[in-house]
Amino acid sequence: MKPLIDASLFPEGFEFSAAACGLKKSGLDLGLIVSKSPAAAACVFTTNLIKAAPLLVSEAHLRRSASTMRAIIVNSGNANCATGPAGLAASRRTAAVVARAIRCRPEQIVVCSTGVIGLPLPIEHILRAIPDLAARRAGRSHSFTEFTRAIMTTDTRPKFAAASCRIGGKRVRLLGCAKGAGMIHPRMATMLAFVVTDAAASPIVLRRALRDAVGGTFNAITVDGDTSTNDTLALLANGASGAPEIRAKNADYRKFLGALESVCNSLALQIVADGEGAHRVVEIEVRGAPSDGAADEVARTIANSPLVKTALAGGDPNWGRILAAAGRSEVQFNPDRVEIRMAGILMCRHGRACTFDERAAHRKLLASHVPILVNLQAGSGIARVWTCDFTGDYVRINASYRS
Amino acid sequence: MKPLIDASLFPEGFEFSAAACGLKKSGLDLGLIVSKSPAAAACVFTTNLIKAAPLLVSEAHLRRSASTMRAIIVNSGNANCATGPAGLAASRRTAAVVARAIRCRPEQIVVCSTGVIGLPLPIEHILRAIPDLAARRAGRSHSFTEFTRAIMTTDTRPKFAAASCRIGGKRVRLLGCAKGAGMIHPRMATMLAFVVTDAAASPIVLRRALRDAVGGTFNAITVDGDTSTNDTLALLANGASGAPEIRAKNADYRKFLGALESVCNSLALQIVADGEGAHRVVEIEVRGAPSDGAADEVARTIANSPLVKTALAGGDPNWGRILAAAGRSEVQFNPDRVEIRMAGILMCRHGRACTFDERAAHRKLLASHVPILVNLQAGSGIARVWTCDFTGDYVRINASYRS
Repeated sequence: MKPLIDASLFPEGFEFSAAACGLKKSGLDLGLIVSKSPAAAACVFTTNLIKAAPLLVSEAHLRRSASTMRAIIVNSGNANCATGPAGLAASRRTAAVVARAIRCRPEQIVVCSTGVIGLPLPIEHILRAIPDLAARRAGRSHSFTEFTRAIMTTDTRPKFAAASCRIGGKRVRLLGCAKGAGMIHPRMATMLAFVVTDAAASPIVLRRALRDAVGGTFNAITVDGDTSTNDTLALLANGASGAPEIRAKNADYRKFLGALESVCNSLALQIVADGEGAHRVVEIEVRGAPSDGAADEVARTIANSPLVKTALAGGDPNWGRILAAAGRSEVQFNPDRVEIRMAGILMCRHGRACTFDERAAHRKLLASHVPILVNLQAGSGIARVWTCDFTGDYVRINASYRS
Repeated sequence: MKPLIDASLFPEGFEFSAAACGLKKSGLDLGLIVSKSPAAAACVFTTNLIKAAPLLVSEAHLRRSASTMRAIIVNSGNANCATGPAGLAASRRTAAVVARAIRCRPEQIVVCSTGVIGLPLPIEHILRAIPDLAARRAGRSHSFTEFTRAIMTTDTRPKFAAASCRIGGKRVRLLGCAKGAGMIHPRMATMLAFVVTDAAASPIVLRRALRDAVGGTFNAITVDGDTSTNDTLALLANGASGAPEIRAKNADYRKFLGALESVCNSLALQIVADGEGAHRVVEIEVRGAPSDGAADEVARTIANSPLVKTALAGGDPNWGRILAAAGRSEVQFNPDRVEIRMAGILMCRHGRACTFDERAAHRKLLASHVPILVNLQAGSGIARVWTCDFTGDYVRINASYRS
């Protein structure tokens, strides 16, 4: 396995490992992130009313440890969701066994699961693998690479990003990775994503930074409009860089937030680009809405329209479907003022067709990144949302996911 | 072409015809319904903010004629939507030429279009065909059969239904037909559907009956969550049966409403069954919601989930996706009380998995009609919504619709 990133980008004091414990038919399916010293933590979980057992257990752990955590344990191949008291016990037991192996308290462990909903978690597979998993952890690029693969389900490739900035003259590094390809429509949270940094910051500052960073990144992407039951984004900061502590609202905070946003933005776009069956990333920008919220509503309605997404799969300049989707968003605007551009080509002006070269447009719409701009000319609200096209492969992947 | 229905089911005083005027590459694409005498009319149009030109023209005509209409002219192959003033002029001109041919006023004509959005309507094709279209109209099953084909776009088969009841000792007949296979997610209106009857009723009574009939029929189906810009449902009653006039809220009204509901219900289910690429009709019933509205919200969220619909394409008993979709509907319930049945098999109880025979379930889920029952046990609200599965064929049909 080729290491994904240069060792110099590694935050100090974090170790990774991965194992194949038998939850998937083959391949890595268990991953561990350990901070050598207790790390301040901030997590964002799914807004779905149905929350998987590991999320409930992790939420309780964060409360009990005052958001000071030592490790994240993640399994793929089984979501441990809709599994009742047995599922909760399995997540708690996983944390206890990890805590024993790395010598900390169980409430210092974040537990995550991803995979099929509603099947009992074969906990014995996980427990058996933990001692060796903990023993082999290392702060090396190879271990991180294995971790990024262990958390994949229908992902076709690992997703990772790094950034750094200087705080009080010291370099602090951020390293992130994520998984997710379907059931993606985060509103306040996201799929599984982990960012570790050797910057020093309190949990309160980290929570604020995470909230500030997710709005325009993880919360601005959608693959299929389905919000997962297991979405988790965790940020750990262990201060091992020796840089001074970041406090809210100063210049250091803004530098750190910039680096965090760049990691989150990269991971979010990697998720869309690897959306189940996707051939291209579609960036939908809505301008001139009555408000930013209204712009977001219009952008999301377009981004989740099966008719728009299938037209994009075929590179069909079917701007009428974009107009129709905007029209059903319940946002008020004058249809006769709408302007629509696909791949930079003006196709609709004053709410009706412009003359454009259909064949040239078709060619441009087959690119791997297609921008769509909708100007409602009904105010100053703007929003940007990223999605992907909707292909026959999405259907094939999801028609027999459990089989 | 085999006649679709028996002549005895034909309402008195209505005539149909169809023509191939050249809007489609081949086949019938223009249809006409004429009532020999002025008929009371009620229409329901799309709730999409973007309304096609023929809808705006028809709305104005209904107002100007006090809802007393003589004919409906429909073209397929072009939606005449987002076509600006030229589109409005084309719909008005169509009505004027039909009116001259059948000798009535232009405001007694309902105009409908369906097809691609945003292309100019080649009006000269339509105008040239109207005189012959009007001359060949007939109250025969063969003419009706041709009409049902002329309004099709991606439909694979014509959709029609008939019913009758006795009013004041006289038999009154209802005959309906519809088109629609994609861009279907009606809230207050529907795709193109026409019902004619020889019952006698005022426009006010017809409007009330139509409103009462659509809630549980056309408004309870969804193919892809995309509400059309051209949705129109028109009901014409010419009184030619000689039966006494139906007045609101008496026994005759209830008999007539029952017959109207049976026609609307049949047409709505035919639309779902012929949903683009669909293999099966899925009936989603939600019980035990905090209110009927909440039940409807949960049912629609499940019905429009791409993950649920693709699992249904594969006959995968993936009830976890149904639970996850319910969880993101924003309706409040206790996840630990949810019960889910697919094809009659209890798969989830107390919010978690039941033991069931996966292979037997898979076989049952491959049927042409699959019922899903979700009981939230959080109140007494109920709702029922019909949808279809989401297949690779849907993507194929929609990836190159304009080409």
